[in-house]
Amino acid sequence: MITALSRETEFGLHLHLPDRARPARALSKTMPSQGAHIYFGGLTDIDGILVGHWTDSERPTGCTVVLIPGGAVAGVDVRGSAPGTRETDLLSPTCTVEAIQGIVFSGGSAFGLDAAGGVMRYLEERSCGHPTRSGVVPIVPAAVIYDLDIGEGKRRPDAEAGYQACLAARSSPVEEGSVGAGAGATIGKLLGRQRAMKGGVGSFGIQVGAFRIAALVVVNALGDVVDPDTGILLAGARGPDGRSLADSMKTLRDPDASWSIRPLENTTIAVVATNAVFGKAAMTKIAQMSHDGLARAIRPVHLPFDGDTIFAVSTGQVPGVDLGQAGALAAEAVAHAVVRAVLTAKGLPGYPARQDLL
Amino acid sequence: MITALSRETEFGLHLHLPDRARPARALSKTMPSQGAHIYFGGLTDIDGILVGHWTDSERPTGCTVVLIPGGAVAGVDVRGSAPGTRETDLLSPTCTVEAIQGIVFSGGSAFGLDAAGGVMRYLEERSCGHPTRSGVVPIVPAAVIYDLDIGEGKRRPDAEAGYQACLAARSSPVEEGSVGAGAGATIGKLLGRQRAMKGGVGSFGIQVGAFRIAALVVVNALGDVVDPDTGILLAGARGPDGRSLADSMKTLRDPDASWSIRPLENTTIAVVATNAVFGKAAMTKIAQMSHDGLARAIRPVHLPFDGDTIFAVSTGQVPGVDLGQAGALAAEAVAHAVVRAVLTAKGLPGYPARQDLL
Repeated sequence: MITALSRETEFGLHLHLPDRARPARALSKTMPSQGAHIYFGGLTDIDGILVGHWTDSERPTGCTVVLIPGGAVAGVDVRGSAPGTRETDLLSPTCTVEAIQGIVFSGGSAFGLDAAGGVMRYLEERSCGHPTRSGVVPIVPAAVIYDLDIGEGKRRPDAEAGYQACLAARSSPVEEGSVGAGAGATIGKLLGRQRAMKGGVGSFGIQVGAFRIAALVVVNALGDVVDPDTGILLAGARGPDGRSLADSMKTLRDPDASWSIRPLENTTIAVVATNAVFGKAAMTKIAQMSHDGLARAIRPVHLPFDGDTIFAVSTGQVPGVDLGQAGALAAEAVAHAVVRAVLTAKGLPGYPARQDLL
Repeated sequence: MITALSRETEFGLHLHLPDRARPARALSKTMPSQGAHIYFGGLTDIDGILVGHWTDSERPTGCTVVLIPGGAVAGVDVRGSAPGTRETDLLSPTCTVEAIQGIVFSGGSAFGLDAAGGVMRYLEERSCGHPTRSGVVPIVPAAVIYDLDIGEGKRRPDAEAGYQACLAARSSPVEEGSVGAGAGATIGKLLGRQRAMKGGVGSFGIQVGAFRIAALVVVNALGDVVDPDTGILLAGARGPDGRSLADSMKTLRDPDASWSIRPLENTTIAVVATNAVFGKAAMTKIAQMSHDGLARAIRPVHLPFDGDTIFAVSTGQVPGVDLGQAGALAAEAVAHAVVRAVLTAKGLPGYPARQDLL
């Protein structure tokens, strides 16, 4: 039995959970400001940020690009111990490059890092990048998830996939669920793939006055997803009946249970974007604090075989925002984006989505 | 109004909350194994580990020592941005020293780091330390909390305080609450000290088969403490009536609220200990994953002015434990140790403890 999900509600995060899976703009419309904070749709509500998906039509995989043609100050924090990344070292506060023009998330494990090449080509064609004497060099950090065992065949997102995602990039609300880099994402893998569920892409944002902060997350975790407000288990490893949730933390406490944490198959990757003015070290701190959102929504997380990585980007439009506040709300946005990812995911053969179990 | 705390219970973590504040040994006795996992008292249930407090009788401050006379493999992860630490660099997996003999937590902000000198003296007198041609050098990492504004006077724990804590060290259940390094600990400081509450020391452990992992935490957070299982707010910044809880995350989302995150005044420090056999890099990973327990029990946490630091030590008695399982259960032990710290804390003038509000 999946635990019942509706609960006492107040204006704010404490919506009936099914509301959280509504399309982003509809969610936004149901929550006018009333002079207080606003929960809004997602990453593309940060001015200057576009999101595009490319989803493979032959195998459940794909890539998702975040374009910031005007450039953004960025930081990163890698907390999983099996990451697959590109162009993360230059984000260190001690490194020189100040602005990035895009981020790409991809399926295909480390092979999918090639998608960044296509994003670079798209940006170079439009003269977006780090200026050099021989033209621009677009700075496009990337991170990948493992989905090589999902569906048939060996197709993996490549440079052309990255380019196609750029062509699809829009400032309209982020398409969520089983699309782009989340097409082949799965969760709840502690009891093996036959007990797993479908993951996906989720996005969620918070506004306080003029300050906005939003997250886009690709959830391919080993762990289960819980409601960060109530601890209620939402999705994850299923029990023997295929419909109940086994509770991975309970399994790990049971000396008689058998389970396995397998190499390379798990990763949650995210980008947090804000319109607040922050430098590179501050964005690194926001990326760091954002991982608390994963901790609150995914149990367990940050495992030796997860590659959990969060980027944080600032478009630098709103000065005077407190760094601690930004980091705390970044974590909240990440946690709720994780929830949206599993509530909007669509099932695949052998990998039911949460909505298939209700 | 403090939210009611009792809830549906099953054997395991989901006890009625007041039970969680019982003395450790009593808690242990109420939860026999029944062939499954056991929740046990705390850090001293790991064989080879002693804990001692020194509590100042003149000002609410003190220090807490964890002695491992036989030595332990150790790692550390600093996630707050305003740490006060000593002997953490040598815990890097690339550094040479393989074993530490003690850890000390202290009040007194960076001044309190002197307590480690007394712990070193105690250990040197007993020939416990890293062997050199001129005798042993005890390796005693340390971390501190800020409590300089609590009570009257300028007393801070010094080397003699560290030595006295060693003399008090026992393998009996850890004394929790407003003792040792937690004597002057406070929480819920977003709305200023006049709205804060008392923090303290908590300890909690989990056993799965022969494998044990336990945490000792000194909770001096800026944030609120929530039940990691249910999200229920347990303690933290108080409302204008002095008895309700304001909810710091809600405050941070309110554009009309005034609040401040102040430098150096917040820090949660912890040590996780296990009897499992792991090397230095693995213990660093466990320290890293343990921070997820802080994320789940404290909101917000890991702030720019927190010094949140977790050490992880292994006494190396039980081989074959999965690193991911150990890290996941370490996080759980840390989260529940945080809860115990606020449930066992005793109030000070101006700083009520949770039990004072019930």
